[in-house]
Amino acid sequence: MTQTPKNIAIAGSGLVGSLLAIYLRRLGHTVTVFDRRPDIRTIRFSGRSINLAMSNRGWKALREVGLEDAIKEIAIPLDKRAMHLLDEEVYYQKYGKEGEAIWSISRGVLNRRMIDLAEEAGASFRFNEKVWDVNLPEAKLYTGETEKSEWKEYSYDIIFGCDGAFSRIRHKMQRRSRFDYSQHFIDVGYKELTIPPNEDGTHKLDKNSFHIWPRGKFMFIAMPNLDGSFTCTLFLPFEGEVSFENLKTKEEARAFFKKYFPNVMQDIENLAEDFLSNPTSAMVTMKCFPWTYWDKVALVGDSAHAVVPFYGQGMNAGFEDIYVLNQLMRELGDDWEQIFKTYERKRKPNADAIAELSYRNFIEMSSKTADPMFLLQKKIEKRFSAKYPEKWIPAYSRVTFSDRPYAEALEIGDRQEAIMKEVMAHPQIEEEWDSEMVEKMILERL
Amino acid sequence: MTQTPKNIAIAGSGLVGSLLAIYLRRLGHTVTVFDRRPDIRTIRFSGRSINLAMSNRGWKALREVGLEDAIKEIAIPLDKRAMHLLDEEVYYQKYGKEGEAIWSISRGVLNRRMIDLAEEAGASFRFNEKVWDVNLPEAKLYTGETEKSEWKEYSYDIIFGCDGAFSRIRHKMQRRSRFDYSQHFIDVGYKELTIPPNEDGTHKLDKNSFHIWPRGKFMFIAMPNLDGSFTCTLFLPFEGEVSFENLKTKEEARAFFKKYFPNVMQDIENLAEDFLSNPTSAMVTMKCFPWTYWDKVALVGDSAHAVVPFYGQGMNAGFEDIYVLNQLMRELGDDWEQIFKTYERKRKPNADAIAELSYRNFIEMSSKTADPMFLLQKKIEKRFSAKYPEKWIPAYSRVTFSDRPYAEALEIGDRQEAIMKEVMAHPQIEEEWDSEMVEKMILERL
Repeated sequence: MTQTPKNIAIAGSGLVGSLLAIYLRRLGHTVTVFDRRPDIRTIRFSGRSINLAMSNRGWKALREVGLEDAIKEIAIPLDKRAMHLLDEEVYYQKYGKEGEAIWSISRGVLNRRMIDLAEEAGASFRFNEKVWDVNLPEAKLYTGETEKSEWKEYSYDIIFGCDGAFSRIRHKMQRRSRFDYSQHFIDVGYKELTIPPNEDGTHKLDKNSFHIWPRGKFMFIAMPNLDGSFTCTLFLPFEGEVSFENLKTKEEARAFFKKYFPNVMQDIENLAEDFLSNPTSAMVTMKCFPWTYWDKVALVGDSAHAVVPFYGQGMNAGFEDIYVLNQLMRELGDDWEQIFKTYERKRKPNADAIAELSYRNFIEMSSKTADPMFLLQKKIEKRFSAKYPEKWIPAYSRVTFSDRPYAEALEIGDRQEAIMKEVMAHPQIEEEWDSEMVEKMILERL
Repeated sequence: MTQTPKNIAIAGSGLVGSLLAIYLRRLGHTVTVFDRRPDIRTIRFSGRSINLAMSNRGWKALREVGLEDAIKEIAIPLDKRAMHLLDEEVYYQKYGKEGEAIWSISRGVLNRRMIDLAEEAGASFRFNEKVWDVNLPEAKLYTGETEKSEWKEYSYDIIFGCDGAFSRIRHKMQRRSRFDYSQHFIDVGYKELTIPPNEDGTHKLDKNSFHIWPRGKFMFIAMPNLDGSFTCTLFLPFEGEVSFENLKTKEEARAFFKKYFPNVMQDIENLAEDFLSNPTSAMVTMKCFPWTYWDKVALVGDSAHAVVPFYGQGMNAGFEDIYVLNQLMRELGDDWEQIFKTYERKRKPNADAIAELSYRNFIEMSSKTADPMFLLQKKIEKRFSAKYPEKWIPAYSRVTFSDRPYAEALEIGDRQEAIMKEVMAHPQIEEEWDSEMVEKMILERL
């Protein structure tokens, strides 16, 4: 079905806002994107963002509007994890099957390209214009210098809130009765650091790996950029014995890296200076419902479901929202109320599932990677999955390399966990882990 | 320890705000209470409130400042539930032991009295003055006609947010990083109705009972007022087969009452008219953390922890907050940072526990009261508790008639539930429920 062209506003010119603008333009709608920030193409992108990991769901959404190739030009495929344990040689873990990879992209570089593409598709952008309020039943936006200054009023047919975890559009919906909402911060913060390129422009570490230095309650990661540099992130508890709270001086920061990350510390640019001057950021899981208001307003991406970044799925989930919305717009035509109702009903369980999966990955990455029984379990699963690839797809692959619903990945993952719990309880598991007996145990329980 | 007198503002002149004002005046502080609403003593109190059930924790907090007797004058003791099943005679269930009762009080009547008492204690009230914003680190309040009008600025030493589930003070705290917050609405709404007194001023139903008409997914309750009337509340799903959504006309409302509440319907005043004109209200569980900001701002009562009303503990929990705060102020003197830190740490687990208990009571009252096995379980527990009163205090009594922490009531209640689950699984339980064998089963598991 085709849709009658509408006059549509999008709050937020981030990745989700600009991709949605492209989709809506393809459907023939008039699109204006508002952002309180200046045009990201005109400013130096100041890092406070983990590099993005584009995976299958993200690519699928880009492919649908013919953008996959353009974006792959600015992405680097990572087909494995590089694990840097303390006092051990680095070792590598393949992510999936041959040819499966996640793609490292700088958020700033990607966002600039997406805005270019949205403009080429005919969307208008109004930067430096903050949306302060929204009239939900009439789809009106109010912008202005400050909350108390005089506001400009804009009328639209439909408004999309793509304005992130602290969405102003959602904020207005939240004040209505019967709006469920939660925000939960984890006790771990993060700080960005940089590994510059070699003098010849090459990468200082293997370019096609996601580098992890797991250290129990904290970890350090590095993802490659096109210019030969790596964007690094230190995840560390805010408070406690080893924590941001206890790293207040350059000396303390240096001593911390010397003790826990001796092999990478000499590669980090201005380590002590950046450590003190870069912000320490918090991470939140945000859930809400409903996501839409009648046929007038809808939340898409982080504004509807912000997750912690440990599964690398935040952007992918937002792009998948758009893919699903687009399918519904094509199926249901001008019945926007039905489009919105179906959209939120279909997507909510999957958003909840990826929130849960992301939170669990945080627990797993921070505490379990040091547990030999956990590593043995992963080895058994890997061996079984290699032998019976149809019977055992690891949860990570379901999330990252398939487009089956997140809720399904969570559910099947829970069943697999229950099976492995029984298997790991076998008294001879450490000796017999690669035996036929263990294989049979799993097969019987599937 | 005594405290240096401070200049303190309270946002909200409800029950918690006015009781806190009295406590703070007793400690010698200067107290100003702001409320966006007019003085409740000057207006007809329009009912959109379930009658309150004052129980042990509430009385204890009033006793501490010598107000128990003054408030008992406007309260009616209820020592039992009156259960009105369809097509059956009413039967009565004692709440606790001899002399134990909950007390029915009209929210409006109580609030007026509390404000009188707070004024007598020397607190100032500023009605019709809405707090729009708060500067947390400097303890400044901003009030004004509208959000965009010119605001008045007030400076205080300390600010308390007693402004309820939709607190403006908390709203400001919520916008800070690492503030955990959730609001969850249940799918059931409520509507207030009235049973007027007999012509001679007496009550139409037993005066010393909490009247319940349980009907599975919905129920009707009535609580007595001093003037001979009853405040009634219909709890009913918003949507679904039998729901507010499907009761849109006077005829539908009358038919609904005729079918489900035939014996009480003729006593209700203007049933069909009030049903249509009175609002349908929603119920929310709200949780957050932290509750305080440095030594400057603290949330007390519903602003920190709103619960659904099915345990009758909302006000009692808020009054207990004040009791605990007062203890800490007397112990810790001028160390307000420590007072606030200790207050939130002590109270948060108990607030979470009463939220959980209240939510479970909603499930229990709405669906389990019709289940014969559930009723049998309650009978077994009652019998055991009568015989071994030291070994088995029912959760309801721990919550309502003790001052032990809510968290303890929840924990012990869970242990009791686990025991009863095993007992109820016994194949002969229906025949043997009052046997020594069952008694022994419980004793062995305690």
